[in-house]
Amino acid sequence: MVRIPPQSGVAFHLKRGQVLRVIDPEGEQVSDLVAFADGDASERFAAGYTTDYANSIFLTTGGVLYSNRSRPMFTIVADDVGRHDLLLSPCSEEMFRILRGVDGHPSCDENIRKSLASQGLQWDGTDAFNIFMNVNVAPDGAVSVDAPLSKAGDHIDLRAEMDLVVALTACSSEHTNNGRCKPIEYEVLDFSD
Amino acid sequence: MVRIPPQSGVAFHLKRGQVLRVIDPEGEQVSDLVAFADGDASERFAAGYTTDYANSIFLTTGGVLYSNRSRPMFTIVADDVGRHDLLLSPCSEEMFRILRGVDGHPSCDENIRKSLASQGLQWDGTDAFNIFMNVNVAPDGAVSVDAPLSKAGDHIDLRAEMDLVVALTACSSEHTNNGRCKPIEYEVLDFSD
Repeated sequence: MVRIPPQSGVAFHLKRGQVLRVIDPEGEQVSDLVAFADGDASERFAAGYTTDYANSIFLTTGGVLYSNRSRPMFTIVADDVGRHDLLLSPCSEEMFRILRGVDGHPSCDENIRKSLASQGLQWDGTDAFNIFMNVNVAPDGAVSVDAPLSKAGDHIDLRAEMDLVVALTACSSEHTNNGRCKPIEYEVLDFSD
Repeated sequence: MVRIPPQSGVAFHLKRGQVLRVIDPEGEQVSDLVAFADGDASERFAAGYTTDYANSIFLTTGGVLYSNRSRPMFTIVADDVGRHDLLLSPCSEEMFRILRGVDGHPSCDENIRKSLASQGLQWDGTDAFNIFMNVNVAPDGAVSVDAPLSKAGDHIDLRAEMDLVVALTACSSEHTNNGRCKPIEYEVLDFSD
């Protein structure tokens, strides 16, 4: 079990068939996930294709995360929460400046970028699967970022459908995490052992 | 005035301050738009940031299309239709295979890729602003692709907020365009002249 401290991120490799378990140890904490095909940085997670194939903006158990080449990257095989976000990009320093008037705020964007750089990957700052993030769309299209539905100890399990390089954060936005940025935990389960 | 034949695409340069007018000559026809900062292929249109800053999945007059660096790329300065899509990726050969069981179907993905290649740009196949595309989200998150609301002659005007390379299509999906793929027209208006 690895703990990701508040407002930070990590990157690591997953082999096809391994299951990534992401746990919210305290509750109401978001974790942004970004993924690349291991060995081919041009293939990466694509929220738009994932939405199209799911025919939904919400994914839960049985849902598939697709790449920009329409290949399955992950299948959700367990999910205590049932609410995650595909619409929004990771919080960034620019976003805190534009939306909240704050300079130099820690961000998922910076944490993903630095974590992936340690794996030799450059990230362009867009699509992510925002685990436990509770984003709702009103009939007129208005988007609201509400308190996560995750309770202490809740988790989601994602089975890797190809070899992957993954970045994972404990989200840095107070607003997104109901007022306080908390840690995230993860473990890699290898059912082929 | 340039006509984009059905199921095809073009790419061209825009200077900051120029206005791109996209016209639906027959009605009920979608046009996918992709944009890069001219001279820096690492800065490109980002649907997730655009949604976050708009606080809405729908953009119309006054709305701003943002890049992956949170810089304005376009402002919508006129809009006859008021319904365009930020959620879905351009239709691709793989999408027609997966969703419709059809091989070798023409696609926006292929048309964007080829058009941008003629400008020396490589496209990774994800974010687009889907002009006139009528995508709705139900309260349970289900996504529906409905007939475009555009009537013959309707247009949208997008003012370039930086120098850009743009790809624009006449969308290749029969389903998205109420059963028949039709042409799109565009012109570049230079108000600084």
